[in-house]
Amino acid sequence: MSGATFPKHLLDFQEWERAQLESLLETAQMMQEVLARPVKKVPALTGFTVATVFFEPSTRTRISFELAARRMSADVVSFTSSASSTAKGETYRDTLRTLDQMGIDAYILRTDAAGVPHQAHRWLQKPVINAGDGWRAHPTQALLDAFTLREKLGSLEGKKIAIVGDILHSRVARSNAELLPRLGAQVVACGPATLLPGKLPGASLTTKLREALEEADAVMALRLQKERMDKGLLPSLPEYIAGYQITEARLAWAKPEAPLLHPGPMNRDVEIEGTLADSPRSLVERQVANGQAVRMAVLYHVLVGKR
Amino acid sequence: MSGATFPKHLLDFQEWERAQLESLLETAQMMQEVLARPVKKVPALTGFTVATVFFEPSTRTRISFELAARRMSADVVSFTSSASSTAKGETYRDTLRTLDQMGIDAYILRTDAAGVPHQAHRWLQKPVINAGDGWRAHPTQALLDAFTLREKLGSLEGKKIAIVGDILHSRVARSNAELLPRLGAQVVACGPATLLPGKLPGASLTTKLREALEEADAVMALRLQKERMDKGLLPSLPEYIAGYQITEARLAWAKPEAPLLHPGPMNRDVEIEGTLADSPRSLVERQVANGQAVRMAVLYHVLVGKR
Amino acid sequence: MSGATFPKHLLDFQEWERAQLESLLETAQMMQEVLARPVKKVPALTGFTVATVFFEPSTRTRISFELAARRMSADVVSFTSSASSTAKGETYRDTLRTLDQMGIDAYILRTDAAGVPHQAHRWLQKPVINAGDGWRAHPTQALLDAFTLREKLGSLEGKKIAIVGDILHSRVARSNAELLPRLGAQVVACGPATLLPGKLPGASLTTKLREALEEADAVMALRLQKERMDKGLLPSLPEYIAGYQITEARLAWAKPEAPLLHPGPMNRDVEIEGTLADSPRSLVERQVANGQAVRMAVLYHVLVGKR
Repeated sequence: MSGATFPKHLLDFQEWERAQLESLLETAQMMQEVLARPVKKVPALTGFTVATVFFEPSTRTRISFELAARRMSADVVSFTSSASSTAKGETYRDTLRTLDQMGIDAYILRTDAAGVPHQAHRWLQKPVINAGDGWRAHPTQALLDAFTLREKLGSLEGKKIAIVGDILHSRVARSNAELLPRLGAQVVACGPATLLPGKLPGASLTTKLREALEEADAVMALRLQKERMDKGLLPSLPEYIAGYQITEARLAWAKPEAPLLHPGPMNRDVEIEGTLADSPRSLVERQVANGQAVRMAVLYHVLVGKR
Repeated sequence: MSGATFPKHLLDFQEWERAQLESLLETAQMMQEVLARPVKKVPALTGFTVATVFFEPSTRTRISFELAARRMSADVVSFTSSASSTAKGETYRDTLRTLDQMGIDAYILRTDAAGVPHQAHRWLQKPVINAGDGWRAHPTQALLDAFTLREKLGSLEGKKIAIVGDILHSRVARSNAELLPRLGAQVVACGPATLLPGKLPGASLTTKLREALEEADAVMALRLQKERMDKGLLPSLPEYIAGYQITEARLAWAKPEAPLLHPGPMNRDVEIEGTLADSPRSLVERQVANGQAVRMAVLYHVLVGKR
Repeated sequence: MSGATFPKHLLDFQEWERAQLESLLETAQMMQEVLARPVKKVPALTGFTVATVFFEPSTRTRISFELAARRMSADVVSFTSSASSTAKGETYRDTLRTLDQMGIDAYILRTDAAGVPHQAHRWLQKPVINAGDGWRAHPTQALLDAFTLREKLGSLEGKKIAIVGDILHSRVARSNAELLPRLGAQVVACGPATLLPGKLPGASLTTKLREALEEADAVMALRLQKERMDKGLLPSLPEYIAGYQITEARLAWAKPEAPLLHPGPMNRDVEIEGTLADSPRSLVERQVANGQAVRMAVLYHVLVGKR
C-alpha cells in the first residue's frame, strides 16, 4: 500500500488531494480481492476498536461500516441516539468526549445536523469518518460511487456524470460534486427548480432532464424524500415522475450502455422505472457491494495507512 | 459429522428427510457436549458472517441464535426493523438483497408476515434459516422441542405428544406437527374451538383436553397471546384457564412422569399452573438450553455440513 | 494478582472487605496499564460470554462494560428491555433464567427498580454485577470514583469527600457513601432539604454547602434529574443553581487544588459552572477513562479472580 501520508479524518474531500484519493481507491481494489475470498477477513485492524455513532438511524450504512471494520478484525461498538443520553440533554460534544475517554480508535459519525463531524474532529483525539451529516456530505457514499463508476467506465477522466433528483437536500449529490471533478469527471446536477440549490460547487445545474442526460457517461438518480412533499417543496409525485423519473426511453438520451446508479434505498417506480432498476444497466447492487471495499479502505487509511 | 447432503435452507421441514433430521439432531448432541465445557467455543465457522434479520422483535430467539453463531466463531450482524429502512418504504426484498451484496454468509430471518422466508430464499444467494414467520413456521423451535423430547423419552417412535392452547395462531404448533411425525411421533393438538384451525397437517385435533392428554408421553403448552382476546377469538382468561390450563391434576391424565414443555415466554398461572412450571416435570429451561445446541447444529449444517 | 477469594457478585459493598476492595483497585491499576498500550486487548476472558441486561437504558454505562469485556477477549451479548419480552408480560425472573439457560458466564444488570440485582443473584447460577438499580446502588461507579480519587489524592485515608446535589434519588451517592468510608474516607452529603434522605449510611448530611465544602479534599457533584422538578421535589432551577451549583468561588472553600468529580452526563451550567467543568480541576473525563480499567478488574475478579 502507498507510503503517502493521508488526512487523519474523512469529513469531506477538502483536505484530500487527487493522489491520495487515487491511492484510497487502489486500496479499495485490494480490499475487493479480500471480499472475493471464501473467508472475507484480514487481521489488518486487530486490536483496534471503532465506534459507530449514529444520531440519525441508518441500518444500511451502519451495517456496511460494521462489517467493513470486523472484516479487518477490529472490534466495533455501536451508539445510536434512540438509546442515548442525548435525550437526557447531554450535548453531542459531551457524548463524543465520553466515548473518547473510553479509548475508541476511530469514530464513524452520522448526524441529522450538518457540520457536526467537522466540529467533532476538534473535540476528539482520534479519526472521525463522516457517515453523513444533514444535507452536507456523505463522503464514503461518493467514494463508493466513484469506485463503481471507475470499475464500469475504466476512468473518470473527461466523463460526464448526470445526477438527477432532489439535489437541494442531498448530501450524496454534494459529496459526489466535490469528489468526481477531483478525479477528472464533469458533473451535471438536474432536478425541478424547487429542488435545486442556488449553486452546487463542482457541478453545473439544470432543470432540463434531456440536457443533463445527453452525452452522459453515467446517470445517478437520488432518493426522493417523500417528506419533502408535505412541505410544499416538491410537486406532486405524479408530476415528479412525469418530469424526472429515469425511464428506459430517457436513459436512451445518454451514451449507449451508460450505467445507472442510485444510493438506495430506492422508492420503486418513483426515481427509476421499476424494470430498469433490476436491469443490467443498474449498478445499484454493485454499489452496495463496493461500499464494503471502500469503507475497509477508508478505515485502513485513517487508522494505519499513515505509516 | 455426517457426509450426507443437506437442504441449503431451513424454511420448514418439507425438504428435510428423516435421515437428514436425525443427522442434524446427532450434530446437536455433539454441540451439547461443547456447551458442557468451561470454554463453550469451537472454530467451526471462523470467517463466516451471519445476519440476524428480525422484522418482528424477539430478543430471546435473536440472542439464542447470536450466541450459537458466536460459539462457532462466526461474526454476527443484527438488523431489526425498528431501526431499519423498511420504515422508509423499502421492501423486504430490497433490504435483503442489500444485505446480500455485503457478503453475508447466512440469514436468520424472523418476520411477522407468513411466507417471507420462502420468498427470501429465492432472492438471496446464501442460506436462509426461518426464525419464525407469522403463524406459519418456527422450525428451530420444533427442532429443539424434538431434541428435548428425545433426550427425555429416548426416542419419538410411537410416542403421543399433546399440544395444548392457541393452535390456530401458533407457528410452534405448525412446525411441531410437521416435524414430530417425521420422527415417528403422533401429535394431538387441543384447544378451544375458536383457537383450532380447520385442519393441521400432521396432527389430529380435539377440543377435549382429557382426550388429548390421556396416554400422552409428553405435553406441550403454547403461549397464549392475550391480544387475541381483544379480537373476540378467545373466551375470557378465566374461562381459558378453567378449560385448558395444565394443572397438576390434569397432567395426571397423561402417562406417569410425562414431561411438560412450553416454548416461552410463559404467562405465569395462565397456560400452566404456577407451581408446575417450576417443578421437575417442566422441561421449559432445558428447552432453552437445548436451543443453543440445536441452533449451532442448524448453522453448521446449512453453512458447511454439505461437504 | 491476589490469591484471595472474592465475593462471586458485585451487588453493593456489603460482602466486600477492605482487603478485597484494595486488591480490586490494584487489579484496575494493572488494567490501566493495558489500556495505555496501542493494542488495548488481553486474552484474560477468552471463551467467556457476558450479557449486558439493561431494563433501563444507559448507553454510556453499557458501552463502558461492553468495551471492558471485549478488551479481555470475552464475547458480549446485549439485552435491553425496549426490545425484550418484558413488554409481553414476562417477569424479570423468567427473562434472566432464560438467559441463564443459554450459558452466559456473567450478568451486568441495570434496572429501574431497586433490589432486582439482589434478587437476581439467587435466581442465577453465575455472577451478577449491578450496573445500577433504581436509587439503591451503582457500585462500579463508586469504584471508579474511588480509583480516580486515589489516583489524584494518593490515598483515601482520612480524606473528606463532599457529595453535592440530589442525594435522595442518587444511587451514586449511596454507593459512594458505602464504599469510600471502607477505604478510610469521611463522606459529607449536601443538598437542599427536599433532596436529602432522612439518613445516609456512611455519610453525614447537611443542607449548608459551605459546611460541606470547607476542608474537603475532593468535591463530587451529582447529576440533577430535571424530571424531579415536575414533582415539586426540587426548587426552581435558578434557585438550585443559586444555592448549590459548584462555582469557582465556592470550590475555593475546599482545600487548594481539591478536584471536582461528576458521574455524567452533566447538565452544563447547572450542577457545575460551565468553565469549571472543562478546567484542570475537573476529573470528569478521567472518571470515564478509569471506568474502563475498573470494570475490567471487576469482570476479572468475579469471573476468574477467585482461583
